[in-house]
Amino acid sequence: MHDVLANVQNLKIQCLDKGHVTLIDAMPRVVPESQKTADYAIVQAARVSYGDGTKTVNEDRGLIRYLMRHRHTTPFEMVEFKFHCKMPLFVARQWARHRMSSTNEYSGRYSLIKDEFYYPELGNVKKQSQNNKQGGSESLSECDALAFISHLQDISVKSYDIYEQYNQKEVAREQARMLLPVNVYTEWYWKIDLHNLLHFLALRCDSHAQYEIRVFADAMLALIKPIVPVTIEAWEDYHPMRGALLLTKLEADALAEFLKSSLWQLKAPLLNVQNRREQSEWLEKAARLGLNTNFDSQ
Amino acid sequence: MHDVLANVQNLKIQCLDKGHVTLIDAMPRVVPESQKTADYAIVQAARVSYGDGTKTVNEDRGLIRYLMRHRHTTPFEMVEFKFHCKMPLFVARQWARHRMSSTNEYSGRYSLIKDEFYYPELGNVKKQSQNNKQGGSESLSECDALAFISHLQDISVKSYDIYEQYNQKEVAREQARMLLPVNVYTEWYWKIDLHNLLHFLALRCDSHAQYEIRVFADAMLALIKPIVPVTIEAWEDYHPMRGALLLTKLEADALAEFLKSSLWQLKAPLLNVQNRREQSEWLEKAARLGLNTNFDSQ
Amino acid sequence: MHDVLANVQNLKIQCLDKGHVTLIDAMPRVVPESQKTADYAIVQAARVSYGDGTKTVNEDRGLIRYLMRHRHTTPFEMVEFKFHCKMPLFVARQWARHRMSSTNEYSGRYSLIKDEFYYPELGNVKKQSQNNKQGGSESLSECDALAFISHLQDISVKSYDIYEQYNQKEVAREQARMLLPVNVYTEWYWKIDLHNLLHFLALRCDSHAQYEIRVFADAMLALIKPIVPVTIEAWEDYHPMRGALLLTKLEADALAEFLKSSLWQLKAPLLNVQNRREQSEWLEKAARLGLNTNFDSQ
Amino acid sequence: MHDVLANVQNLKIQCLDKGHVTLIDAMPRVVPESQKTADYAIVQAARVSYGDGTKTVNEDRGLIRYLMRHRHTTPFEMVEFKFHCKMPLFVARQWARHRMSSTNEYSGRYSLIKDEFYYPELGNVKKQSQNNKQGGSESLSECDALAFISHLQDISVKSYDIYEQYNQKEVAREQARMLLPVNVYTEWYWKIDLHNLLHFLALRCDSHAQYEIRVFADAMLALIKPIVPVTIEAWEDYHPMRGALLLTKLEADALAEFLKSSLWQLKAPLLNVQNRREQSEWLEKAARLGLNTNFDSQ
Repeated sequence: MHDVLANVQNLKIQCLDKGHVTLIDAMPRVVPESQKTADYAIVQAARVSYGDGTKTVNEDRGLIRYLMRHRHTTPFEMVEFKFHCKMPLFVARQWARHRMSSTNEYSGRYSLIKDEFYYPELGNVKKQSQNNKQGGSESLSECDALAFISHLQDISVKSYDIYEQYNQKEVAREQARMLLPVNVYTEWYWKIDLHNLLHFLALRCDSHAQYEIRVFADAMLALIKPIVPVTIEAWEDYHPMRGALLLTKLEADALAEFLKSSLWQLKAPLLNVQNRREQSEWLEKAARLGLNTNFDSQ
Repeated sequence: MHDVLANVQNLKIQCLDKGHVTLIDAMPRVVPESQKTADYAIVQAARVSYGDGTKTVNEDRGLIRYLMRHRHTTPFEMVEFKFHCKMPLFVARQWARHRMSSTNEYSGRYSLIKDEFYYPELGNVKKQSQNNKQGGSESLSECDALAFISHLQDISVKSYDIYEQYNQKEVAREQARMLLPVNVYTEWYWKIDLHNLLHFLALRCDSHAQYEIRVFADAMLALIKPIVPVTIEAWEDYHPMRGALLLTKLEADALAEFLKSSLWQLKAPLLNVQNRREQSEWLEKAARLGLNTNFDSQ
Repeated sequence: MHDVLANVQNLKIQCLDKGHVTLIDAMPRVVPESQKTADYAIVQAARVSYGDGTKTVNEDRGLIRYLMRHRHTTPFEMVEFKFHCKMPLFVARQWARHRMSSTNEYSGRYSLIKDEFYYPELGNVKKQSQNNKQGGSESLSECDALAFISHLQDISVKSYDIYEQYNQKEVAREQARMLLPVNVYTEWYWKIDLHNLLHFLALRCDSHAQYEIRVFADAMLALIKPIVPVTIEAWEDYHPMRGALLLTKLEADALAEFLKSSLWQLKAPLLNVQNRREQSEWLEKAARLGLNTNFDSQ
Repeated sequence: MHDVLANVQNLKIQCLDKGHVTLIDAMPRVVPESQKTADYAIVQAARVSYGDGTKTVNEDRGLIRYLMRHRHTTPFEMVEFKFHCKMPLFVARQWARHRMSSTNEYSGRYSLIKDEFYYPELGNVKKQSQNNKQGGSESLSECDALAFISHLQDISVKSYDIYEQYNQKEVAREQARMLLPVNVYTEWYWKIDLHNLLHFLALRCDSHAQYEIRVFADAMLALIKPIVPVTIEAWEDYHPMRGALLLTKLEADALAEFLKSSLWQLKAPLLNVQNRREQSEWLEKAARLGLNTNFDSQ
């Protein structure tokens, strides 16, 4: 038997200045020596639908890719991960939007909050983007960034001073904490199944996500990749927020009309894959895009 | 104030031989006269993110389309529908896979099951597909179909006879029912939010869904369309299981390589839309597909 | 037809110094004149299990009480409420722990956060409880409370000044906000079904909940009570965190042993209810508690 | 390190005539030698709230009991179980009402359904209860039961014959299956966290649950008990559907009035527990029940 956590070199990844993501546990944790990864449990669950047992590694890979391509998502729920994470409170707030997960967080009602605050690196203070409403790619001038960080440190230190002072004067912790800014660190245990985790990662590894949560999402992706490598490969190939490309109806129609009207009808290129089903799915799409897929008649 | 149920001509749609879907209620039910549809509530919730109030009908449409295109799904959870449905038990079983909904079903433990069974129409008995594992498009020979339906009627009638007989002999209902076949009808109230309903409809209106559940999904789509018309239009344009087209990484790469290598680089066609953001999103994709989007230099 | 929102005198309730809870919508919104409340939809859904239609108002009340007493919770999911709420961020964090709900929140990434901070009233700054880990019932000395609030105001004003200043210097909003303390106000739309709302209210109207969220929970309870009065009455009678009393196995056994060993066996008192089923449920419990329920033999 | 599955003597328990429940996996699977059980993960997650590490085994037990008694349910979500189950279809339908779980079921669309049907034992065919609407405790006469089972076998055999016959004539499997009765066996993988599993078990191990699903619930309880023994002990002591006793407001008030009015006020018995918090919680309840808890003054 093989412990899948052994697939990961370092179970703890530092994130931002004082945070981290640590992979605590996985389900399945123990897999047959012949398998070595938790992709195993996805295939096991999916095969119950077909009344089949396990097959060759190659057929297993084909099945996982088929499930991912065709949005048969339930077998991916059969794998579970548990992380211990430490992150600034404003990151925790975005994170907690993902409801299909289990969380136990450090409590500022029961315990003293620790004196740890997030300060961005100089080059990571961004300018407000003009065309969309998010943080842009352009960095703030070094001078302004320095001043901003300095103010942030000032407020953090000052507020923590008062927090400590009033804890000694026995203000209820649940109330004393309310003067702490949202760059204060918190921590939690977080458990989620692979299907919902991939949904989280699609949104939070994306370039539209705030940098400070993206760091944590990237860390989680790095941690699970050696444990479910076939699943991650399929996800990178087929998810529209990863390598795949979603053409809207308007775009597909415009492209089809354009390709059809080219001087001579273009012949669809073939995919460089062995999988015949995947090839034929492509030819259906190519036909929709106005490419010639009638190979016999040529 | 306007009652959105008034947008629907007939709230009850017959499905299969003895089933139906009836729209019982919607939230929002009552909307401003100036709005007339429940798309209103989606915009209302989304605008709280931006700290904005309502805007023109055209801007509202643009916002809903933007939310749909960019998978900002939470505002669509703000609309809720409640249906009363009657369907064969094997359809109910597929339906119940969709967990993010609320159900109250007729109980065979508490009540006598009614003598109503589903018998397919002659032309709707399908042959097993050979290449995939689902019901195919080809119909069974009329002769075989007739015989199959006749057997189905025979079993249904016989089992119901025994069911009735042993109810009179006071076998517990919960046990007596166990001889009834899964073409027996059941009914339930079903409540679901619009986001989760669209997920259901994408899967169950699809050609890969079994015909007998597709009928119910199509009925629900027809019922909600006049209540959230802008949302449905956006969904048809942008969902990969509706009008949109998802190219896998392999497909997009193959197409890009192919288009780049054509004799002269093809200039990307423009979309026929006013929306500048949608246009520029397309040009990004067109560039990835190897089309020339550098209009200035030409 | 009757609009259930008309049952509520004032749909907006002020909470804390600058917050509020506003009831925006309910499902069912429109009910028959003969019903007037949304309890109606619970009965409607529950009756589908029994294959029954509606009955007298009294039988409906009996059914709702039966469902509540016996934890048949699904019919309560058939009623839905939508609120617009404004609360301090640390309250929003506790609130967001309740996952079975839909939320759209004001976004500090997209919009400028408003200059509104929560400052507790003088008498509401509590001392840390010694025996449990929560805010106690004892208030802080007026002098210390005054100083604490003054510090809180100072930090809030100072941090907002810097926030504004760096917004003008075009720091990305998503980063600029990180120096704001958690007493800053946020707002959201929040939709939840009645079953899950009652779970929320049981926990958050309770004396162990932090005062600052209890205010919001109490407001929501006041708002929905006239819309589902029979349900709320049943909940107050039967929920262990409301009027009911949960004896652990150890407690029930100790009490039973004690009552059995009293000089003469005590005769169980009767409940002052018409409902025979409720009476007989009590007698079963009374017997377990060692009371004499054998009325005939006396 | 210790594998918690080793705590269970036999991971597969036969249920009914041809079904079973098999424990496939648990999370945590691997625990420290000093712990031996998965209760460990509950304490680990809960302690993050208090900023504490692990403590003595006795303190851990106290914490789990405290969490259970006070409905702090989230740490119990941190433990996960996966089962492989085979059960009659009408049992699967009741089971599937529990939505907070993951399921992969054998598919009658893709695969041939096997020739396995449930036939109750002679003594297990029950009479319909008159006072409630469920299966009663009284058995049917042997003669009637024998005849009922014989009819059930007859229908099952006949319908399976036709099923096979029309599979050979290539009726689509998804349609051919519709003549099979609901006593046919199906199977699935089922994954659920401990909190939601305890909710399932409370309802389905209860005497009001149908016998045929109770068998499976009892099997699951037996399987997990050696893996989370402290949790199960606490659950048996504190859950109102297990050993605890929930007095409604009406019952508690009636009992209190009665006990107060006894000739001399009865002195509350003490619990036989070391835990001081549990003792003082009892005294609060005893006072509410009209017992004298003023020990000093006596």
